[in-house]
Amino acid sequence: MEFSSKLLESAVNEMAMLPGIGKRTALRLVLHLLKQPEQQSLDLSKALSKARTEINFCKSCYNISDTEVCEICANPNRNKKLVCIVEDIRDVMAIEATSSFKGLYHVLGGKISPMDGIGPQDLTIEPLISKVRSGEIEELIFAMSPTMEGDTTNFYIFKQIEDCKVTTSTIARGVAAGNELEYTDEITLGRSIIDRIPFETSLKS
Amino acid sequence: MEFSSKLLESAVNEMAMLPGIGKRTALRLVLHLLKQPEQQSLDLSKALSKARTEINFCKSCYNISDTEVCEICANPNRNKKLVCIVEDIRDVMAIEATSSFKGLYHVLGGKISPMDGIGPQDLTIEPLISKVRSGEIEELIFAMSPTMEGDTTNFYIFKQIEDCKVTTSTIARGVAAGNELEYTDEITLGRSIIDRIPFETSLKS
Repeated sequence: MEFSSKLLESAVNEMAMLPGIGKRTALRLVLHLLKQPEQQSLDLSKALSKARTEINFCKSCYNISDTEVCEICANPNRNKKLVCIVEDIRDVMAIEATSSFKGLYHVLGGKISPMDGIGPQDLTIEPLISKVRSGEIEELIFAMSPTMEGDTTNFYIFKQIEDCKVTTSTIARGVAAGNELEYTDEITLGRSIIDRIPFETSLKS
Repeated sequence: MEFSSKLLESAVNEMAMLPGIGKRTALRLVLHLLKQPEQQSLDLSKALSKARTEINFCKSCYNISDTEVCEICANPNRNKKLVCIVEDIRDVMAIEATSSFKGLYHVLGGKISPMDGIGPQDLTIEPLISKVRSGEIEELIFAMSPTMEGDTTNFYIFKQIEDCKVTTSTIARGVAAGNELEYTDEITLGRSIIDRIPFETSLKS
């Protein structure tokens, strides 16, 4: 792509470094900004640099937070003995939206993925193990996405704390609400029969 | 979406104002930036604000340019009597990439589209008419996209300069190179038969 302006070219190139945004899309976005009031671009620019330089991570659960300890960890009404391990803030938001969980989170910041060069040392596994070893946690819920990497990460952490006095559980896997049985994959359907629950239990939710 | 951080929320909201980017995509992009080196976010932020505040439009053709008169208009080897009317810089880049055009451009900055609230006064039609009336142009090529809005814009401009001593032409419409006839729409195929050209002419390109 040949640009008639270095300023335009540099904005497009920076934009195109974002995942899933190619040069053409980047050009479309930048041209859109040029047609909008100047303030919109300045607001976007400021919000991005502020977010990157000023955002904190909760020193207890490693979730993104504006304060040293996030709102969830600081809430006295939450059960501090119950900790749910998740990949990132999106999972925290998804679980919070269900209003079904009253414990705390531990945000790993990713999952073990040798393909992407992410090992255990790149995640917040170390502080999690310390927390578990200190005995302050009663139950640990593994809530990584049910993918190869998620399962690997779960298993790695489980191995490290196997000898600790802590209950471990994992979120239920099975047929999703509203799904047709015939279109459910065999692994999920198979597991959902093996992991069947008493019918009375299913009535409660 | 409930955010645990105002900084994150504001970055996501600003990002989601871009066309085609929803809140979820915006969150994914911002979280990606948070995982990258700080410099990347600062570079993006700076490039966007610089592009918006410092970019110039060529005072002759209204193309985006870092200089007062763009490289194309300033090039003495280009035919200043031949002007191609296009919608925006993307069309200039597309035509330049063909190396088939040695004249100048006139960038309208959009097309007449009452649905989007864009009228003739929002485009650079006024200065184009003046240019034509001054007699400095010999041929005007209408090169808007062959859509309803593009055709309307072409026709609007044509009506304004009908009485001027200037040759007008429009880019050829027909079957695209490599396309199968059976999949070509009837309007295009019909026009391509009516607007047929001598076979010898087709051998030249």
